[in-house]
Parts: sequence; structure tokens; C-alpha cells
Amino acid sequence: MTSSSPEARTRTRDPDGVRRRILDAAAGLFQTRGFNATGMQDIYAEAQVTSGAFYHHFIGKKELGIAIIRERVAAAVDETWLEPVRSAATARQGIKAAFTNVIRGLDAGEGVRGCPLNNLTLELAYAEPEFRVELKAVFDGWRRTIAEKISQDRARGELETSDPKALAEYVVAVYSGAMALCKVDQSSAPLADGLRQLSRTLAKPRS
Amino acid sequence: MTSSSPEARTRTRDPDGVRRRILDAAAGLFQTRGFNATGMQDIYAEAQVTSGAFYHHFIGKKELGIAIIRERVAAAVDETWLEPVRSAATARQGIKAAFTNVIRGLDAGEGVRGCPLNNLTLELAYAEPEFRVELKAVFDGWRRTIAEKISQDRARGELETSDPKALAEYVVAVYSGAMALCKVDQSSAPLADGLRQLSRTLAKPRS
Repeated sequence: MTSSSPEARTRTRDPDGVRRRILDAAAGLFQTRGFNATGMQDIYAEAQVTSGAFYHHFIGKKELGIAIIRERVAAAVDETWLEPVRSAATARQGIKAAFTNVIRGLDAGEGVRGCPLNNLTLELAYAEPEFRVELKAVFDGWRRTIAEKISQDRARGELETSDPKALAEYVVAVYSGAMALCKVDQSSAPLADGLRQLSRTLAKPRS
Repeated sequence: MTSSSPEARTRTRDPDGVRRRILDAAAGLFQTRGFNATGMQDIYAEAQVTSGAFYHHFIGKKELGIAIIRERVAAAVDETWLEPVRSAATARQGIKAAFTNVIRGLDAGEGVRGCPLNNLTLELAYAEPEFRVELKAVFDGWRRTIAEKISQDRARGELETSDPKALAEYVVAVYSGAMALCKVDQSSAPLADGLRQLSRTLAKPRS
């Protein structure tokens, strides 16, 4: 490739922009169609990059998938879940905020594409062990953040539980399963129902 | 094709066997790798059929996918969930039996491949509306059977709930989400934790 090719110029000018465009395109396509249903040509077209530019940034589709999990899916879980939980007064309030924001997003959007972490997990965690490790790391951070908040609540007498870790895992399970139902129903109602039931489990104990 | 070709003979001898072999092979491959990651050649090889024999029974991969949902996934949900719930004395006991059987199966098996209904739903329900309709029908039957049992329990004072339908949906969400965690953890523990929490929600009210 000569330095005057359009691609070399793009790379020289804006290498981060190219990588970012690839991640944006792939994150959207994986979320809409799934990882395996997305072809490389779809990614090049959506990102408006050449295959040469792609391979300048990624070894291949698997490395791209891992970057999506680390940089996009983990960031989405952080923004949607970890931040609300960390910044809330109690786990219950943080969990309610996370559910409520997602429900609002689904109601405002066009179609329920589901939780990107759960989508990739159910598609890839068994067949692709390398992906499983990455996906588990995101689930682990999610469970850990909720468990820490529950432990704090328990120490302050805000929540009664013998096992903050198991309760945090349960919260993630309720959310993940309710989102699967939202996807098959194309409705936010299962998340709203899930939050209602979960709120009873997380209610402040009567003193 | 002449009537003396090997395939015609197979068809003449055992048309149901061929169709059954294709369904067996595809159900296993979809469950292990996913729908989109399974190629037609994989299915022919696994089922030991020719492409001609395949197209004698199915228009294409989409029709095969729909047959898998209707005949295999629905049957698995029926066996794993609907039968235990219908035949139990209470919803709580039926749900416990379903969870316990699945946990036992995971502990005895080699790796957690997950719930076939949820796997196909997260992979396909958004991108493929025809699949969504079929997957939703299975989820609807699952929710309905549990809701009916909960309604009976409520009528007999075995369970206190204002909304059997929402509670049934919650049970399905807990199971589905816990199974997603089992898949990413490659462990049955999240299902056991989920059942423990859920049992409190489904506990007989104190009289």
C-alpha cells in the first residue's frame, strides 16, 4: 500500500476514528442481528472502512468481538447498572433506578433488542470459551457491585439477607430473564413486573 | 432422481427416520453452536443425509428452525417444566421439581449449553420476526401453565398473590436469567441460588 492510498491517508489522519467507527458499527450489528449472523462485509459497509483498515486495527472477527465485550458491553453495563447502583442511597433504590431507566429506554425505542451482555452470552458462551471468559468478567463485576451495595445496606440494617452475593446474583438473574421475556414479547412489561416482585424481596425489613 | 438412487431408497424405506434424524442433528447443533453458526453442511453431516433428502422434508433452514421450535424446544419445555408443574400438588412444588431436575441434569452433564428456548430467543427473536412468533408461543404456554397452577393454589389459600400471571412470568424470568448465569459460569449454582430466593416468594403465607 502506498502512502497516497485513501486508506493510508485515513489511518494517518484519524486512526482512533476508524477504530471507533468499527466498534460502533459492530456493536450495533451484533446487538441487532447477533455475532454469527454479522458478516465482515456488513461491518466494513456499516463502518465505512476497507478490509485493510479493519485488519490494521483487529486480527479478525474474534478479536473484534472481545473488544466489543471489553469496551462496549462492559461500558453499557457500567452506565446502565453499576453507576446507578453505586450512586444510590441503597441497593433497592439503585436497582429500581436501573430497571426504570431501561424500561423508559425500551418504551422510547423502536423494538426490544435485549441486553447486549445476555445476547452474546447465550449465543457464544458455550461454543466459544474465549468469549465466555470475557463475558463472565462483565457479569462478575455486575454481581460484585450489587453485592457490595447490599452488604452496606445490611450493615446499616436497611436490608435483611444472609447472603449478599446470592441476592446480588438473583437481581442479575431477574433482570436478565425479564429482558429475555421483553425481547420475545417486544414489550417492557416483563421488566416492570420483575421490578415489582423484586422490590418485595429487597424491601426494608419491618422493625 | 431415479427410484434406484440411495436417497430415494432411504426415503421410501424410512421417511420419518430421515426427518427425525435431521431434527435430532439440528436440535443438537443449534443448542451447542447456535442457529446462525450452524451451516447446512454441518446438519447434513451430523444427520447423515444428503441435501436432496433434506429438501424433501424442509423448504430451507428457516422452516427447519421453526420445526425445531415447535417439535423439539416446545417438547423440552413441556417435559422439563409443564409436566412437573401440572402434576405437582402446588405451584411451589412443581417449580421446585423443575429447577431441581434441571440442576441435576447440569451436574451430570458435560458443560452448560443453556435453555434452548432462551438461546434461540436471544439469538433470533429481534432479527427474525417469524421465529419470534413461534418462540413467544412456547413462552406463553410456559407462563400460562404456571399461572393456572398459581391460581389454583391461591383459590385454596396455598399462595398469596394479587396477580398469578405476573408471578408466573416472574418464575420464568428467574429461571431464564439464572440459566444465563449458569451458562456464563458453567455451573448449576445460579439455578440453585435462584430457586432458594424464589421459594421465599412462593412460600405459603403464614396463617
